[in-house]
Order: sequence, then structure tokens, then C-alpha cells
Amino acid sequence: MTASPDQASGTASTFADRHIGPRSSDAGHMLEVLGYPSLEKLVDMAVPASIRLDRGLNLPAALSETEVLAQLRRIAGRNRTAVQMIGQGYFDTVTPPVIRRNVLESPAWYTAYTPYQPEISQGRLEALLNFQTMVQDLTALDIANASLLDEASAVAEAVLLMRRSGKNKGRTVIDADALPQTVAVVRGRAEALGFDVEVADLSAGLPDGDINGVVLQQPGASGALRDHAAVVAAAKERGALVTVAADLLALTLITAPGEQGADIAVGSAQRFGVPLFFGGPHAAYMAVRKGLERMLPGRLVGVSKDADGAPAYRLALQTREQHIRREKATSNICTAQALLAIVASMYAVYHGPEGLTAIARTTHQRAAELADALAGSDADVVHDAFFDTLLVHVPGKAAEYADKAEAQGYNLRRVDADHLGISCDETTTPEHVAAVAAVFGGSHTGSASAARIPADLHRTSDFMTHPVFSLHRSETAMLRYLRRLSDKDLALDRTMIPLGSCTMKLNATVEMESISWPEFASIHPFAPESQTEGWRELITDLEERLAEITGYDRVSLQPNAGSQGELAGLLAIRGYHRSRGDENRTVCLIPSSAHGTNAASAVLAGMKVVVVGTAANGNIDHDDLLAKIEQHAENLSAIMITYPSTHGVFEEDVRWVCEKVHGAGGQVYIDGANLNALVGLAQPGEFGGDVSHLNLHKTFCIPHGGGGPGVGPVAVASHLAPFLPGDANRDIATDGGPAAEGGTPVSGSMYGSAGVLPISWAYVALMGSEGLTSATAHALLAANYVAARLTEHFPVLYTGVQGLVAHECILDLRPLTAATGVTAEDVAKRLIDYGFHAPTLSFPVAGTLMVEPTESEDLAELDRFISAMIAIKGEIDRVAAGEFSIEESPLRQAPHTAQVLIGDEWTQAYPRELAAYPLRSLRHDKYFPPVRRIDGAHGDRNLVCSCPPIESFED
Amino acid sequence: MTASPDQASGTASTFADRHIGPRSSDAGHMLEVLGYPSLEKLVDMAVPASIRLDRGLNLPAALSETEVLAQLRRIAGRNRTAVQMIGQGYFDTVTPPVIRRNVLESPAWYTAYTPYQPEISQGRLEALLNFQTMVQDLTALDIANASLLDEASAVAEAVLLMRRSGKNKGRTVIDADALPQTVAVVRGRAEALGFDVEVADLSAGLPDGDINGVVLQQPGASGALRDHAAVVAAAKERGALVTVAADLLALTLITAPGEQGADIAVGSAQRFGVPLFFGGPHAAYMAVRKGLERMLPGRLVGVSKDADGAPAYRLALQTREQHIRREKATSNICTAQALLAIVASMYAVYHGPEGLTAIARTTHQRAAELADALAGSDADVVHDAFFDTLLVHVPGKAAEYADKAEAQGYNLRRVDADHLGISCDETTTPEHVAAVAAVFGGSHTGSASAARIPADLHRTSDFMTHPVFSLHRSETAMLRYLRRLSDKDLALDRTMIPLGSCTMKLNATVEMESISWPEFASIHPFAPESQTEGWRELITDLEERLAEITGYDRVSLQPNAGSQGELAGLLAIRGYHRSRGDENRTVCLIPSSAHGTNAASAVLAGMKVVVVGTAANGNIDHDDLLAKIEQHAENLSAIMITYPSTHGVFEEDVRWVCEKVHGAGGQVYIDGANLNALVGLAQPGEFGGDVSHLNLHKTFCIPHGGGGPGVGPVAVASHLAPFLPGDANRDIATDGGPAAEGGTPVSGSMYGSAGVLPISWAYVALMGSEGLTSATAHALLAANYVAARLTEHFPVLYTGVQGLVAHECILDLRPLTAATGVTAEDVAKRLIDYGFHAPTLSFPVAGTLMVEPTESEDLAELDRFISAMIAIKGEIDRVAAGEFSIEESPLRQAPHTAQVLIGDEWTQAYPRELAAYPLRSLRHDKYFPPVRRIDGAHGDRNLVCSCPPIESFED
Repeated sequence: MTASPDQASGTASTFADRHIGPRSSDAGHMLEVLGYPSLEKLVDMAVPASIRLDRGLNLPAALSETEVLAQLRRIAGRNRTAVQMIGQGYFDTVTPPVIRRNVLESPAWYTAYTPYQPEISQGRLEALLNFQTMVQDLTALDIANASLLDEASAVAEAVLLMRRSGKNKGRTVIDADALPQTVAVVRGRAEALGFDVEVADLSAGLPDGDINGVVLQQPGASGALRDHAAVVAAAKERGALVTVAADLLALTLITAPGEQGADIAVGSAQRFGVPLFFGGPHAAYMAVRKGLERMLPGRLVGVSKDADGAPAYRLALQTREQHIRREKATSNICTAQALLAIVASMYAVYHGPEGLTAIARTTHQRAAELADALAGSDADVVHDAFFDTLLVHVPGKAAEYADKAEAQGYNLRRVDADHLGISCDETTTPEHVAAVAAVFGGSHTGSASAARIPADLHRTSDFMTHPVFSLHRSETAMLRYLRRLSDKDLALDRTMIPLGSCTMKLNATVEMESISWPEFASIHPFAPESQTEGWRELITDLEERLAEITGYDRVSLQPNAGSQGELAGLLAIRGYHRSRGDENRTVCLIPSSAHGTNAASAVLAGMKVVVVGTAANGNIDHDDLLAKIEQHAENLSAIMITYPSTHGVFEEDVRWVCEKVHGAGGQVYIDGANLNALVGLAQPGEFGGDVSHLNLHKTFCIPHGGGGPGVGPVAVASHLAPFLPGDANRDIATDGGPAAEGGTPVSGSMYGSAGVLPISWAYVALMGSEGLTSATAHALLAANYVAARLTEHFPVLYTGVQGLVAHECILDLRPLTAATGVTAEDVAKRLIDYGFHAPTLSFPVAGTLMVEPTESEDLAELDRFISAMIAIKGEIDRVAAGEFSIEESPLRQAPHTAQVLIGDEWTQAYPRELAAYPLRSLRHDKYFPPVRRIDGAHGDRNLVCSCPPIESFED
Repeated sequence: MTASPDQASGTASTFADRHIGPRSSDAGHMLEVLGYPSLEKLVDMAVPASIRLDRGLNLPAALSETEVLAQLRRIAGRNRTAVQMIGQGYFDTVTPPVIRRNVLESPAWYTAYTPYQPEISQGRLEALLNFQTMVQDLTALDIANASLLDEASAVAEAVLLMRRSGKNKGRTVIDADALPQTVAVVRGRAEALGFDVEVADLSAGLPDGDINGVVLQQPGASGALRDHAAVVAAAKERGALVTVAADLLALTLITAPGEQGADIAVGSAQRFGVPLFFGGPHAAYMAVRKGLERMLPGRLVGVSKDADGAPAYRLALQTREQHIRREKATSNICTAQALLAIVASMYAVYHGPEGLTAIARTTHQRAAELADALAGSDADVVHDAFFDTLLVHVPGKAAEYADKAEAQGYNLRRVDADHLGISCDETTTPEHVAAVAAVFGGSHTGSASAARIPADLHRTSDFMTHPVFSLHRSETAMLRYLRRLSDKDLALDRTMIPLGSCTMKLNATVEMESISWPEFASIHPFAPESQTEGWRELITDLEERLAEITGYDRVSLQPNAGSQGELAGLLAIRGYHRSRGDENRTVCLIPSSAHGTNAASAVLAGMKVVVVGTAANGNIDHDDLLAKIEQHAENLSAIMITYPSTHGVFEEDVRWVCEKVHGAGGQVYIDGANLNALVGLAQPGEFGGDVSHLNLHKTFCIPHGGGGPGVGPVAVASHLAPFLPGDANRDIATDGGPAAEGGTPVSGSMYGSAGVLPISWAYVALMGSEGLTSATAHALLAANYVAARLTEHFPVLYTGVQGLVAHECILDLRPLTAATGVTAEDVAKRLIDYGFHAPTLSFPVAGTLMVEPTESEDLAELDRFISAMIAIKGEIDRVAAGEFSIEESPLRQAPHTAQVLIGDEWTQAYPRELAAYPLRSLRHDKYFPPVRRIDGAHGDRNLVCSCPPIESFED
């Protein structure tokens, strides 16, 4: 016997070893290139001592993957599933397993980024175009976007759209039968912007007075189906615009909003195969009539053509968006719910128009059966006309019956002391109908006497007639369609996505697995608390851990995107000032390098944006800051800064900036977009922030999903805690403002995109303090390694005082562009031929590329990227040397499709192999984009936002 | 209110609508092409009336996908997970989530076929080559195969290998410390073939007398580690061969079998990340020293080169295999455990040599800690030297302590009344050690005094030094490696795989999902019955439903491949004859068109193969049959026929054939390979069969996994039921034959590949009688449609009396080959350029292609295949017309890689676009194979079966 067992004991790898890309020997090599003896030394130099945290984070010890799964199973086990008949905008649904596994659980779909680089995003753009086409057809409106964050905020966006575009600037009128959480969210937005909202029973006609816009709900929150034709006509006559919040499934059977003259339709696509997820993430939709498209918020996919004239998809009308229009944008929304919109669109592709209609008919049939079964029972069915939801009248006994149903496994909606709501959906069975009827003393006969959809509301028009909705009906065909689309795209499962400011790090499988467990996925957001103990444990725990990581006192996970986190944070600041009588404090200072969303959010929070200039070194211009503070001292509400800065630099003066603003009575909002450079090293709540939003879809591993879901928690110091977003589902007085308890809700459900929170919870639990800190250090290492290796080829624009960058670096293409005509866009497109997703293009500085490698990329991948960039520099040098003109160069001709490379004719000024295989390594692993460079302007001039006819793809 | 709700009630699709490809309008079109008014009429004409079933199958009504998942959750809930410390060849393990999701749960991996078409299989061939390299390195032997079915049958194969190749034909000696289930399986095989097996305690040296081969176990079943060097040396001196059944994890720490002179090493790779699965499927391995490679059973991956001289992988030495060598094959095994071997290989890639060693050290540490903790307790640890398993002596109290441990959630091995086995594995924690020690009154101090691996057994040699075992350690790198490999391959998720006799139908997600649920996946095969109620319910239910479908009385699910089903069925026949004193009945008639496995299995069952000729119409030659029956009447054991025949034809005379054989006292074995043409239409057990094996991985939707897992249940009439495979884990006397109860076991665990049975259970439950029958009818429709559309281009070789084929058709290329030189292989390889996996090549008739489209392909995919075949015929016509020679044609040059197509030089006689895009549809969906046509003979002449150096891939 030799070797002591203690010596021999395990050195099995931790999760952090799997999350972090470089092995320790690789890190050693990278440090050597940088000239630092250790990672600690590098971090000490890069991060200003003035903000460094001098202790580890107070977090539980890191768990193994097995332990995390066991913990998640325990937590999930504290939730209770039930038959969900609460409705109120959230319905149970069947996610077809083939879609669950091959979209929701497939890295090829969920690790994709927003399709800003359309040539490598044709698959998901097609899926989103299917979504738009489906929505346009069902609503009978002209143009639909590719999803909003949830129904409540989508209605709020519609109200804002009506206010922007309506000639009549009067009040907004919302029907009393709108979803209560929608009303609460709209009221909150209105209050911030200072316009009036009236809730009125529109079944009696429009109220008098000036009206800008009207919001109707179909079916109503009570389940009632009403013919809105007369109200719509009256509104239009009086110069008001009309929005209908409509249920997509119901629209397969009833007259569409567009057919009744509505200007806008909004709603949720959740019941198209997206799990309840305890409230989100779900894709909301918005469709508008022609003429409003340039006012439409959110992402819009359009059809254009590529350099060879072939049809090609890309995001249309980006000039509307906040990253370009800033405070003049149509909306502050940046993230969409792309992954969920894709699921919903695929549900539609899978079922087709007949399938959806059949599901709607069965759903309606169940509701009608239930109404019949309740005849003669203790419950009176209030409305004669309904689709899937019954409002029943049980005077004084609502709680008693709801409790009884709950005890038998059925959740009903507790409307008030006398009323309950009962909603059917595609999962409702005759047994469910019988059981619920029995609760009230009714009995189910197995059939219904008559359908309850009024004849004059019957839909007669076709929808979803495009072949895509009939070609993929067998599972085999569906599977192959999903694979074919995802194969067109580049996502994290094939290549690094070195997008500055986006933090495209590993989305580990173990983090992802639990989200589709029924105990998490099938919980209704308004389920009784006794059924959601697991969810609330996980959420509270995550809030507390994020508070510790950021150095704040309280965290709200409600905001379902970074933009919503910003809005919630700014509304908290506003609420704080008001609570102190400082109604006038509405000026928000924003540095010129800030992300456009900052400005757009400030406007939505009722603030006035004042821009602070940037000094030559990229930092905030101190003189300008002091001048602006002085100029607006009385009215100063806040400053919004990003730290490290959007230039990828740790500014040394951040404490000083915070102190100056505080000194003038302002609050400090620190945008957490770049938190990946800080975790474990410094805390924004400690070095001067009063509030931050985080992006769990950046730093905390929620995958980007092709453009959402996102989660943008807002973290605050204790004085702002009372103003964190409240619950939109609280009782609200129909004529009052937002309820007094808590701040303004920004989402229809209390925990926003709850369904994906286990991902971030798992990440923090797996990493622990040491792992998280190590990840940050490795992110700094990787960025500095890339910067050091590339700066001789492409100068790094900004660095800190030590010559180091933070977690990303800006490569300045402008001198090369001036000398050769080769643009940053050319480099971005040429990178596709090298098998890469481009870095961030022209943000925050036009004509540059911003590279953020993250800690998850290993040395081999970093070197592959560096080799590609150096090779591209070589190509630029050949342009400079006159070997080929820029127009004739492989840079401007990029990207190259297989079709063009294999064409019988080859007329380019460079050989085929240079085009396709500029590096030898590409011969063994080559991605061919499906289209060549896309002409975005052409598409915007000739706007087409629905599926083009199949013939257009023929040569 | 209009429209009665009953009229309006749902027509939502059933699962059968998703499983079956053609929509009903498509089926109408296909029937029109065939000239039949309805599917029923087509079926009536295709299937002989003499065998038609005149009733529906007596099966429960079809369930929806949601209902099936609910049922499976209920059944899974009847199993109980526990800390599995039973060992005995099965150990708990952690499947890395990234591997679980992206291999075990990824259609790109699990829907792949066996890599007989290597050009579209380079990804899985690389993964399997990694497996072989890992096994070779760990065992220190020269050549390893790419998996066998389970450890017990692998030892049996090793014994047969020793008997085939050893000069000394004496008895086989097995060490008494071998796994009991292994001993039982080996004895069964030996008894059938008539050679002697002796079980002896070899720690005392070899017994006297002639010995052909010796089998050792390391560590022993008792956990004991012994130095086998002396026994091995003694065996070799006496002319005997030596097999060591070795634990791969232990081999990271102890001297390898090859280093001690063993000829063969075998064992299980289960604990490398493959779930316990209630006994299987798991990959077993076999490695041999140089010189034995041509005797090696099972699949072997080798390195060769493609037409451009680039390294390329393919199956090596196929001439050893049963499909070519028939009764002279090295083994009857056809299926491997490819998917599980890939999981195990990826576990090794993910952990690397240091990671595996660390896991082994921790495992050993736990066992050593437990041994220390038991000092002074009621349990005496029997052996001083062990790796992971302790044998403890508790006189008369084994059951009592095992019960006590079980009550606390710990399963121990119940060895006998006085002994228990306790095994540690990578999931064992210090808490587990403490709890188990406490059961016996021991107490855990948290450390161990000394390691228990004898110094002279310490491993000193390196292993897994190839870079592939160190390049993919971060999860990101692992994910991308998995994606990159699977992208090289064509599987069912991208294209139909029209392989005649292989039934490549849909593997629906809902069927697959439950197999990774812990309540199914983490159950030990020898867990107490009280913990496996769910498993046994599912298995009994599936057995009963398969009995109803096939018309037999009893079914055993033990055989874990079709070949094992054949063997079990033939052994049942043999047992039956013997039970009646008919020892002489050993002649097995096999038609010349039979699959080679039939003959190989008959030999292994101790039978003599007599071939029956084929008539001109492809059917069994009646005269020859009668002659052979007469000639062998006294000795006739059985006939093995396939129905419908391997020619894809419903032979009208099947009842007559069965009657003739029965008349002569023979039994009828009906190979169920083609059962997909019969389900719901006819029952082999009704029209003459006494026994059949089925292939659940064909007809019943278990995916092929790139060459396994398979399940080959054996179904029998009641008189054969007593001879169905017994349980290899029963108590067996060390000197006796197989135990009396039940027949010969063919697998180490009672239910073989239990882990994948939920797939077939779900399929049957989802389809019901009507759905299954409809699937069969659509399979016939699809095959006849393809035959009808293609026969003018490629004559269909055989049809039934009505001019119809069954579920597949043979396209005869021989006339075209004679006229033009274009071979069936050329067509198969050219199909790759068209994006297809080739049909079955040269089976059952050389020079032909056999096409089986299955019911799951929709009309669009069938037409895509037909268009490709017609276009290829056009290319053959151009060869015939002299436009280019066969050598210069795109047929012979196929397949074309992107590299050759994009090469700066193009010297082919045809244009690039013809090579790449012979059909316009390919421009939008093109697969590029990673290599050109592979030279298999070169690889067999220059046998390399481990990972080639990375430099060999450089140009």
C-alpha cells in the first residue's frame, strides 16, 4: 500500500472550470503575452483601487452540477401543479414536444443573438417572419412586429403609439373589461408621462370629451365577447385611434380587429405553445394598419434582397429604434421575446390554420359544455356570449367555491367576493368540465346545447394561407424544418460571438435544464401562494444574491428586459424625488457615449435628457459635467452612467462623478450592462450607485434566444426600495391612480420573465464567490489578450490609465477606412466567411468594432478569432497596395455563399479559395452563409414584412 | 348563436397524424398514381387474404402526447431512486448535462444510422474512434472495437474468440470471482455449442488439464484487486489465451491487462457517463492484442483515405461480419451500442486522462474511508486490496443489514446470507460513507488511513495522450465539438434514410423524452423489486401489447439486439426439442436470401445451417424446400424465414411453408425484421410462426443511434414459453449448468436494454390499433408509390402476385451496370450529392438498391427522393450516350466535397454546378460531405483503428 489517500483524493473539476474557457496553462500564456505575472496582478492594475472590493462575496459555497440539479428538484418540488383555469391573459397550452426539444431546448436556437447580422440569421428571421405573418393574418392588420415583452406592456406601447400618431391629444380611454394588470401598467406609464387615462364601460358607448385613443379587450377580462364595431366606428368618427387587445386563438373563430376598423391589435402569443412559466417569458404581439408602421415599436423583420438579388430577410426600419433614435425613439424597448415568438410561430406552423381552428373549437366547446353544466347550479353564468372564459356569479361565496375547486386541483380566478372566472384552454378535458361543474352542484352531460359565439362575430375570412403553414405537419417534416432553419444561422454553439456590450458567454446546459420541468413551467402567475412556494424561494434567493453581488439593498426581478429595468429604476428615482416634494427634479444627465436605450427610457420616465460630453480619452468630460450640474442643479434628477464605460474602460473617476451628482441632490443610475467586468471585484451599490439595472441575459447566463427573453432586474439602495415595481395584479380602483403599495409596475406579472430565472439562480449557485470572481478576472484577461494581440493591426481606441481595457475593447477601423475605403462593416461581413459572428458594429463609436470575448471562450477560439482578424488586415493591406480595388475585394464582396463560390462562372478579382478558405483551418470547419450581403435600404424603401411567395425564391 | 357545438367540436390532430408523413390528400394522390381507389383496396391487394387479420388489435385506445407523458410520469413515479451501491458491474455516474442534452437527447445523434455509408458518417465515426482509442489506451491492448452489447455477452464473445483462435481446444476456465451474470451467460453459450466451462478460484493458480482460455475479472465481483500476472503467465505457458474483464475506471489507477500479457480485455463502459437505465443499454468494450483483430467481433472503426488522399474513417474489416460471412462469421452480432459508446467516449473527452484519474481517486478514497469507518463495526471487510467495492462479512445478518440500509435509501449488494457488497462510485459522498458505516455501527472520521491499491498494481503508463482528450474541456468547447461532429453527418433529422430492411421511421420526441428522467434512468438493474414497480409495469405491459400485435403468447424483452433475439428464439426451439428428447433436431433451414445474421445465430445456437434455394420470382423454391425437409426430416429443428421476405414481397405461400415444416416436426422461426409491413394486418404467430424476434429499433421507433442501442424481443407460442431467456442474476451453482428455471439468458440483466423501452411503449400507446394499422398501410403505400414512380427508370426486381411490393422495393441496377459500368455504389454515393443517405446497397441481391421509405416520410420528401433518382438516371444516360466516361462522370467522382467544388482548379469533365446542384432545390438546402469517396480496401490493408495524429489532417 502506498500513496496516502488524502494525497490521492479527487481533484475533479468544478463547474467554474467548465464555464471558464482558458485552462490555467492557457491563462499563463495569455498573461505572458500581456506581461503580467499573475491574474491577480492584472486585475489589480486594471480595476481602480478606489473601487475594489476587499472581501469575497457573501454567497453560499459553490455547488456541483449534480448538487444544483438536486437543489432545483427540491425547489421545484415546493411548487404544486394544478389545472389552471384562472385565465386572465395566461392559459395552459401544449408545447409540441418536437418544438420543446428542438427550439426551447436546442442550443442552436437559444444561444443565438439578435439578428443584427442578418446574413448569419436567415433561419431565425424566417421564423420571426412567420410569426409576423401569423399575427397579421389573425388580426387582419397590415404589419405586425416580431414580438413585445408581455401583453400589459404591449398595450402600454399601443397607447403611446396612439398618443404619438393621433391628431386628437385628449385622454386615453380603456374599456372596463380590459385585463386589470394591463390597466395598472398603462396607468403607470401615463402617470409618468402626464397624460390622462379613463377606464370606462364601453359597452354603453364612448364617454364624452376629447379622446386620443381607445383600448378594447376581446374577449374581455370577464370572458364576454362583444361586437366592438359600433364603438370602433364612433371612435374613428371622433378622431380617436383604436387598439384591440385580442386573444389570437379566439381570432380563429371571431371577426378580426382589422376587419372592424381597429388601428392596432396587441396581445399575447403565450397560448400558442409557450408554457405558463409563472408569468413569463411570453411573446406579446402588436399589429398595425398601414400608415402606422414607422411608429411601430419593437423589432420588425422585413424582406429585402442580397447582393445577388436573392430574397433575404433582415430587421426593417431600424431607424425607429432606440439604439439609433435615442430619446426620439418610438419606444425604449430593445430586447424582444424572440425565442418565445419562434415557439409560437412554430406552433402555428405545426398546427396550421385548420389545426388552430380545431383547437379553438374544442376550447370553446368545453366552455359551452361548462356553461350548460352549470345551468341550475349555484353558479349563474353572467355572459351569454363568450369564447373560453365564464364569469360566474356566486353571491358572497366566491372564496368558498374557489377554495373547494382548489382543493380538488382546479385553480379558478377570484374576481371579487361574488364572482369567479373559469377559463378553458386546449388542455381542458370533459373530466375537468365535469369536476368543476360539480364544485358548484352542476352536472356535465357530455355535450353543449349551443355554441356561444354570436353569429355576427363569426370569422369568415381566411388566414395563414401561406404554404409555410401547411408544409410541415408531420413531426418528421417539422423536425427537419427546424433543423434546416437553425443550420442557416451562426449561434454560440458553433462560434464565439464577440459582441461588445452583449456578453455572449456560456449558457450551460445544467443551467437550462430545469426551465422545462412542469413544476416550474406550468405554474400560473396568479396561482395561490400555497402552490408557488418553490418559485418564491428561488426568486427571493436570487434577489438576495444579486443584492450581495451588486452591493445594493434590494432587487426586483420584475423587469423583463434591460430597458424595463432602466424604466423601473428611473421611475424609482422619480418616485423618490416626488416623495420628498422635489417634483421639479426631472433632468437626467446622460453621457454622449451611452447606449441609446438610456435616453429613451429617461423620456418614458418623464425625464428631460441632457447630454454630457466625452473627453478625448473617452471618459466623461469633467468640465462639461460640472457645468451641466450647475446649470440644472435645482432640477437635477439623476445621472445615468455605464460602468465600466461603454468604451470598455474602467474610468478612475467614477466615485468623483457620483459624489458630484449626489452633491447636487441628484441620484446616480449605474447601467449594469457591463457588470461582467465587476462581479466579485467591485459593487456599483458601494462605489456610488443608488440604482442599477442588471442584464441577466448578459452577465448571468440567460441565453439571448435570438433576441430575447431578457431579464433586467433593478437593484436599489434602501431609500429607493419603496419605489420598486409593484404588483400589477393588485386590486385597483377603477378611477384611481396606481395603487399606493409599491412603485409603478412595468410588467403584467409580478416576476416578469420568471420562467428563465432558474438559469441565473443556477449560475450563481454553481460558481459561488470564487467562481464568479474568477470569471470576471478571466473576462478581463481575455479582452486584454485580444486587445494586445490585435492593437498593432487595428488600434485599440480607448484604454484605462494603465493601458488596459476592461472586459471589451474597441478596434478603431477609421484610419484604415480613410486610407483604403474598407469599412468596419466590410470587416464584419468578411468575418462571416471566416466563420465568425461580427463584433458590435459602430457602437459606441461609428466606424469601429467593439470586441467582448467573455470568460467562456478558450484560448484556441480566441486565437482563431485573432488569426481571422489578422488575415483580414492582410486583405486590407492588399487593397491598400492596389492588388484589387475595394469594390472588387473579397472584403466588399463578402460574405460569399456556397452558390456563388461553386458557380460555373467566377469573375471576381481574387481566387475562389481565397474567398472561401483564407485560412487553412476553414477547410475542416466551414460555415456557408445562405445569402450574400443584404441591401437593408432596399427593404426599407420597399417594405414587405410577411412571408414572400415561394416563387420569389426561384432563380 | 349558430353552429351546433357538436359540429364545431375539435378535429385536433392525433399523434398518428404526426407520425405518418403523407396528409390524406397526399395519400389520395399517391393512390391515384398507383391506380387504387382507396388505401384499404391497396392493402387488400398487397397482403395475401390467407393471412389477413380480420379484426382490430386488442390494444388500449390511443393516447395523446400529453396523456402519454402523464402516463409515463405516473409509471416513473412507481420507481424509487436510491443511492445505488450494489455494483456488480453497474455503477452510478454523472452524465455531464452538456453530453446528455447534445448527444443522448439530440436527434442529430440519436436518429443516425449505422455508418455503413462512411462519407456521411465522419462525425460519429470520429466519436467511435475516440472510444476505441480510449479503450486501447486504458487496457493497453492494440485494437478495440466500437462496442458490444453488454459486459456479460462481451465475455461470452471473448470466450468464443479464444475458442476460435486458440490452439488448445480444452475447456474454458472462469475465475470464481467473475460477475455471476457473466458466468451464467457464458455457460449458456457454452452449453449450446457443447464445450466445457469450469468456474475455479484462480487465486490458487490454474487447475490442471487442457485449457483453451482463461477469464479473469479485475476488480473481482467481490471487489478484490488481485495481481493476475502469475496466472496470466501460467496460462500462456500452457497454451491458453487470457481474457480479463476489467473496469475502465479502475484501469486509470491499476496495471492494465495488456501490460500483464492478457490477449483480450472486455468490460462495460457504462460508468463513463451512461445512466444505469435499469440494466441497459450500455456499451461494452472488447480490446485484443495484435494478431487477433481479424477474429474480433462487432463493429470496428478504422482510418483510411478518400479519393483525394485525405484521412477518412469507415468501418474496417467488414468481411468478418455476419452480414457478409453468414454462418462463418466471427459473431452473430450486428447492432452495437453506438450511442452509448459515443456518450462514454465524450465523457472521456470531457474529463481527459487527469479528470478520469481524479474521479477514480475520489471513488477509491470513498471506499477506503468506508473500510476505515467499518473498522470495529459489526462488518468485517474481507479483502485488503480493493478499488471501489468492499465485501463485508456479517455472519447471518446480511439481509438484516441490507434491509436497514435500504430503509435509509442505500442499496447494497446481497451476496449471500453472510456477505454484502458495497460499491462506491463518482456520486458517492462522505455523507453516504458515514450513513452506510453507521448502518453497521461504524463511524466515519472523514479521511482514510491508507489507499488500498497494492503498490505493484499501480499504473505507471500514460493513457489518452491524443490531443482530442485535452482540447474540449470547457463546456463551450465541448458543445461545439459535439455540434461540429454531428454536422458532418446525415441523420433522419435532415433527410429520409430509405434503407431497405432497416425501417428508418420517425423517432418522435414525446417517445424519447422520458428515458432521461431520473426515475427511469437511475435505477440499478438489481435494485429491490419494491423500487422497480414502475419499470416492471411498463415492461409487462409492453410484452403483452407486443404479444397481441404479433399473435404470440409470450414475449421476452431481454435480448438487447435483433441478433440476440434470434439466438434466444433459436435456443428456445432447441430447448423445446430437447425437452421432448429430440436431441438430434439441429438442422436449421435458411433461405438463401436471408439476412446473414440468421445463419450466424443458428450456428451459435448449436444448429447446422442448410440453405434453401430461391425461385426465379424471388420466393422460396418449393421443390428445394420439400427436398431439404425430406433429406433432414429426422434432424429438422427449424426453418428461419423473414416475412414479408427480404425481397420486400408478401409471399402467398407462407402458410404452406409453415405447414410443411411443422409436418416434418420442425419449428418455424419468423424473422420480424419486416414486421413494419404486418402490424395490424397479419400476425406471424397466427399464420404459422412458433417464434419471432422483433426489432424495436425498426418497427417500434427506438432510434438507431448511429448503430445501437437495439432491442430484439423474442415472441413465442406457449409451448416455447418455458424456454424464454431466464435471469442471469439468479443464484447459480458454481459447478452446475444454467439454472433450471427459464431458458438460457442472453444478457447480463433480465430486461436487457430496459432504458429505451419507454420509447416503444409510448409509440404503441400513442398509436393504438387504428394508428398502428394505418402506419402499416401507409408504409405499403409509400413503398409502392416509390416503386411505381421509379420502375421505368430502375426496374423493381421482385413483386407479389398482384404486381405490388410490400414495404420496400429492390431497384435492380445490374442491367445499367452491364451497359454503362455505373454501379449501385456509384448511385449510392451520388445520392449524397443530392442530400440523401443511400438505400440499402447490395442486400439481399448484389448490384441492387433496396428502398424502404416507411410511413413517416411525407409526399414532398418521397418526391424529392424520386426526383433525385430520376436525375441520377439522367446522368447514367449521359454516360451511356458517351458524354463522359464512367470514370470521368459525376457518378464515379461522387460524392463531391465543398473543398473540391470550390478549388481554384476544376478539371472534371462536367461543370461544378452539375456536381453540386444537379437539382435546383439543392441551392436552398445543400449538404456537403466532409470527405470524398473512401477507399475501404486501403484501410483494411493498412489497419489503423485509433485516432490518427492531428498532423495527418494537414494538406
